[in-house]
Amino acid sequence: MCTKCDYTIHSHHHHFGWDNSIEPAGRIAPGTTVEFECVDSSGGQLTAKSTAADIATLSFDKINPVTGPIFVDGAEPGDALKITIEEFKPSGFGWTANIPGFGLLADDFKDPALNIWSYDKGSMEPALFGKNARVPLKAFAGTIGNALAEPGLHSVVPPRRVGGNLDIRDLSAGTVLYLPVEVAGALFSVGDTHAAQGDGEVCGTAIESPMNAVLTFELEKQANLAMPRFTTPGPVTRHLDAKGYEVTTGVGADLMAGAKAAVSQMVDLLAGRYNIAPVEAYMLCSVCGDLRISEIVDMPNWVVSFYFPRCVFE
Amino acid sequence: MCTKCDYTIHSHHHHFGWDNSIEPAGRIAPGTTVEFECVDSSGGQLTAKSTAADIATLSFDKINPVTGPIFVDGAEPGDALKITIEEFKPSGFGWTANIPGFGLLADDFKDPALNIWSYDKGSMEPALFGKNARVPLKAFAGTIGNALAEPGLHSVVPPRRVGGNLDIRDLSAGTVLYLPVEVAGALFSVGDTHAAQGDGEVCGTAIESPMNAVLTFELEKQANLAMPRFTTPGPVTRHLDAKGYEVTTGVGADLMAGAKAAVSQMVDLLAGRYNIAPVEAYMLCSVCGDLRISEIVDMPNWVVSFYFPRCVFE
Repeated sequence: MCTKCDYTIHSHHHHFGWDNSIEPAGRIAPGTTVEFECVDSSGGQLTAKSTAADIATLSFDKINPVTGPIFVDGAEPGDALKITIEEFKPSGFGWTANIPGFGLLADDFKDPALNIWSYDKGSMEPALFGKNARVPLKAFAGTIGNALAEPGLHSVVPPRRVGGNLDIRDLSAGTVLYLPVEVAGALFSVGDTHAAQGDGEVCGTAIESPMNAVLTFELEKQANLAMPRFTTPGPVTRHLDAKGYEVTTGVGADLMAGAKAAVSQMVDLLAGRYNIAPVEAYMLCSVCGDLRISEIVDMPNWVVSFYFPRCVFE
Repeated sequence: MCTKCDYTIHSHHHHFGWDNSIEPAGRIAPGTTVEFECVDSSGGQLTAKSTAADIATLSFDKINPVTGPIFVDGAEPGDALKITIEEFKPSGFGWTANIPGFGLLADDFKDPALNIWSYDKGSMEPALFGKNARVPLKAFAGTIGNALAEPGLHSVVPPRRVGGNLDIRDLSAGTVLYLPVEVAGALFSVGDTHAAQGDGEVCGTAIESPMNAVLTFELEKQANLAMPRFTTPGPVTRHLDAKGYEVTTGVGADLMAGAKAAVSQMVDLLAGRYNIAPVEAYMLCSVCGDLRISEIVDMPNWVVSFYFPRCVFE
């Protein structure tokens, strides 16, 4: 039960893809706090008993449901929807998968793989991966957005200027997010909750985990935001950084190639040093390693770096 | 004077560009600690009395000198040169410039601009910018690398797999860097020292500051590294993160366009909120804001985020 909420949107009010003709699941005034029950990004297809074989038979029609939409009174195109991310209520269950055809290194990792996570939803202590890796947790919503002005059904996979599948690791409790509004009422939905993810989400999935999200909505009239922006109330990586980082780099004229090179070298480093399968190292990179652009000005070569937190193995 | 060093390479031993035929300034055995006197990246053309007018007349033949090269006994192609970054000895003087034609937003910022910094080289307390911005400092070497196998003179501007102008903010004291060796002796040089920089170095310059660098060299035989990698001994952003971040995003199918969009929006946000010129906001972004890739897998749109530390104004 939510103690601070004015409203709960239950998980059966979920939809697949964005479509501004979907009937609102609720209507609220600015200032309202709402709890959303979020289904995991497999839409419940994966459970604690699933195996890699279940990845091959996933129905993509049921991928990435979002709970909503809610209609915010007074929201008009040109406004920004201000969302204060109050709290997440994690479930303790999660999964991370390598899904063939999806992920930064899809050309190198063509076979399905699945890791089932069990974490302490009360303490949110680092979660065990394999025999001796421990991944720090920070819950957030991977998909959080408003409906598009353009009519029709739009895939939930790509994020857009109104938000959506942003997969920004720091959209966690305490952060204030501003999203452009393109339709009357904003028609906000949220889902794809994650217990942990690194910047990049490099294998294509995080610690995918059903959980409730508690959010407060306000409006900034005629903010005319071009893209989403947000404010974090404090540090964003202190759960990861205490023991420093191992860092690999990709140097070259293309940022995408640089990102692939940096992650690929980290996969090799972790697999070799810790005697784990390359696909395990790849999934581990996705849930806690960070892609950063170290320099983007020294023509014609840029440097993309991949930071893996040493605390995971030390 | 260096108390831990076996050797000092004085600043007159600097060269412009990389060329494996340059006579070594010194020859050392693995295990040796060396102090390098590094000239600033203008090669001394800019001083505390310089103005924006001096940017227009900079001689690019004298840009980015590096001190060295040193020949490391036993280093052979295929080895990695292991460099322990022991210490920097900052000078207290620095500059940041917008140089026309250079920088991520070169199309938007076509006029030269210059900020002269004076910082406390003993305390390394945050340095004042304008009336009320204070930028946390962390000294590092922007250019650090080995000679290329390919004969001839190569521009110092682009970084390469042997290192060079990497401009990686975390190559600071305590970090251990591994660089591929392509020629006998490695022929290592260092320069382009910075008192502070954000990930991206978005305006093209950091707090450019002459200082000495103390480095210890070892070899990892036949490491066969593809690209530079490094290990940090602890957290890398705690000098910046205490009050959280303002974050702007660029959402779209091209990482470079996303980076430009994110930085451009942060320039607008800072200039509007703090009543500073856009070019001042741009230079400020370069010395302390970080470019991160939030997600690179949600086809076909990626999210590049620009993190500006709130401590600078709060």
